[in-house]
Amino acid sequence: MVDDQPRALAARATQVCGLEVTRRAVERVVSVLLSAPSIWELYRWAVQPIKQVQALLQVLQEAGLLEWNRAGPRLTEGGVALARQLGLEPVEHAECSACAGRGIVAGLDQAVRCQFLEVQKCRPGADSQFVQGSVTPESTLARAQLAIARGDVTGKEILVLGAEDDLIGLALALTRKPRHVTVLDLDERLVRFDNDWAQKLGLRLQAHVFDLRQQLPEKWLGAFDTFITDPPETDLAVRGFILRGVAALREPGCAGYFGFTFHDSSLPKWWRLQQTLNRHRLVVTDLLPAFNVYQNFGYLDKTPAYAGTPAQPLPQQPWFVSHWYRVVALHGFTGENADLTQTEQDFCTDAETMTDVPAEPSCCLCAPVPNRGAPDGAFVAGQE
Amino acid sequence: MVDDQPRALAARATQVCGLEVTRRAVERVVSVLLSAPSIWELYRWAVQPIKQVQALLQVLQEAGLLEWNRAGPRLTEGGVALARQLGLEPVEHAECSACAGRGIVAGLDQAVRCQFLEVQKCRPGADSQFVQGSVTPESTLARAQLAIARGDVTGKEILVLGAEDDLIGLALALTRKPRHVTVLDLDERLVRFDNDWAQKLGLRLQAHVFDLRQQLPEKWLGAFDTFITDPPETDLAVRGFILRGVAALREPGCAGYFGFTFHDSSLPKWWRLQQTLNRHRLVVTDLLPAFNVYQNFGYLDKTPAYAGTPAQPLPQQPWFVSHWYRVVALHGFTGENADLTQTEQDFCTDAETMTDVPAEPSCCLCAPVPNRGAPDGAFVAGQE
Repeated sequence: MVDDQPRALAARATQVCGLEVTRRAVERVVSVLLSAPSIWELYRWAVQPIKQVQALLQVLQEAGLLEWNRAGPRLTEGGVALARQLGLEPVEHAECSACAGRGIVAGLDQAVRCQFLEVQKCRPGADSQFVQGSVTPESTLARAQLAIARGDVTGKEILVLGAEDDLIGLALALTRKPRHVTVLDLDERLVRFDNDWAQKLGLRLQAHVFDLRQQLPEKWLGAFDTFITDPPETDLAVRGFILRGVAALREPGCAGYFGFTFHDSSLPKWWRLQQTLNRHRLVVTDLLPAFNVYQNFGYLDKTPAYAGTPAQPLPQQPWFVSHWYRVVALHGFTGENADLTQTEQDFCTDAETMTDVPAEPSCCLCAPVPNRGAPDGAFVAGQE
Repeated sequence: MVDDQPRALAARATQVCGLEVTRRAVERVVSVLLSAPSIWELYRWAVQPIKQVQALLQVLQEAGLLEWNRAGPRLTEGGVALARQLGLEPVEHAECSACAGRGIVAGLDQAVRCQFLEVQKCRPGADSQFVQGSVTPESTLARAQLAIARGDVTGKEILVLGAEDDLIGLALALTRKPRHVTVLDLDERLVRFDNDWAQKLGLRLQAHVFDLRQQLPEKWLGAFDTFITDPPETDLAVRGFILRGVAALREPGCAGYFGFTFHDSSLPKWWRLQQTLNRHRLVVTDLLPAFNVYQNFGYLDKTPAYAGTPAQPLPQQPWFVSHWYRVVALHGFTGENADLTQTEQDFCTDAETMTDVPAEPSCCLCAPVPNRGAPDGAFVAGQE
């Protein structure tokens, strides 16, 4: 029965990668393959973990349904026949071209827009040491515009937790709408970059070198109206970045924003994330697919996303995207401000992440941290 | 301290309406009022329960910060001064005009598009008896396009539960992409309308008169790839519409779609909904704000949304919107197929809903149902 083949392929792929691969995941990959994509286009449109896509490619190849050529993975005649039998068609791309599918347009003030686009040109480059991969300037501007439209920026105290490789804190400060922007990032280069521009342009922004495995000092708990972050996609980083952001919120009604992908995270991991949000009495009000588009990072060829397939050309276009969450705190909400420096777990990678560099001895966030006693002692404050 | 006034207003509004009104909710309403909106524009952009907006208007008026004129509620000089002190600005409307903020464009096949727009012109009108208020044709087409793009339509068995006043089942069938569309609706007129067109055009669609308080017959459980619904916004209807849809899903990886508003539902109700989804092992993959735009319904002047303020002109433009959820079932997912006909609770209204007609003795869905024994006996099947 033709219906059984996708199920058998899914079961085999589950064995290969250890993730729960569904029949629908098989169908999706085959649908994308009908358009003869590059491996990066396949990753983009499969909307499932790269690890799972690689397993499916292997399984399809074993079954004689797929072969590789220099431009990418291709269905064989057998593969195309299977797609036809299943009634599959190439994936329709319905994203609005005017807003790149975000649904909002970052109009902003034209002067602010130009200023940001100019300033960001001299930003420090992405560094795998910090698990960085920054979003396009348009993504950052869209984040700023969305938060403004939701009422989370104007007159507000804003906290950016470790997402400043995207320069979202700087972009918000440039609008002159926030009461103040506090930026925490482990990367000294970014902190200096932000503070230099803040001084030069008289922005209400202060950046601090800060390791988000450590506890926020007392003065920042319950002190902000809005937080923005973009965590590595591990359960631990959800606590260190997102729940720490929640701990920094002032009161019910305050909002937080963060990105999350399907490239590095399975649906079960998404489910755990949503369970965590719910348990902490946060409600998701927006979940916007492919809102964040990431620039291609220089260390891509050192990642399992690249190494896990036959040699392929590096991408010419951005392909890595993430959903953008907005959550709002309800009465009784709880954050978490745990000391995560002594945990054995890896902060940045888990069995599903595929766009980090495992070859490196350790990234900054995974290096052991000497226990410095009181959390305030560990806090490297900027000038205030 | 100026900071205390919004908090005091929020506390007073909480007393008035019984919902948890936050400082941020006050700020949002004041921000919208800065644009001198009609009451309908205020409802649209306040992004909070109408009941809460009405309470805030009352409280602002009591405090001398608001007065009414014939065009809508207006901030007094005192109200404008408060807004200025709080650093508030008018709400920025950043929605992309090309896609009405949906992020996707319902390209579809041009012929399908024209056919749907033509066919829907002779649809039965919205009936308060069925708690109907149908979305614009563009919203229906966008729903169809999104589901197609996500891989939830082509070659799939689709179940539409009680949302056929929007003609989403008919729109999907017109694309000729689904394997089959099953439509369940309480409104005989819609069932006949769908079946007539299905016969005339040879569509793979079958509509049935069905009361969603009743159990689905065995043959429909675990039989579908995708469900689509648009429930009344009560906890009970979440079970009757959404969880029943989940019970109809075949396997992990299958998807469901439904609408939910802030007009009739508070953030705590949203939180309960998300908790319910999570408990049933569903993961939210898309949550798209204002994706559904509803046509103005003829019975609006009989609803508390209209009656709860000084007399105001009826709306000229659509204003009622809802978020569009997409959820995916994980391994171990569970639906619910409970018999809800004998419950004392109201199926369609709760303390937060404001766009139904409470004056009517009862809507169809709230009338007592005679217990007909076995659920299959209660099932009014269409011709098959």
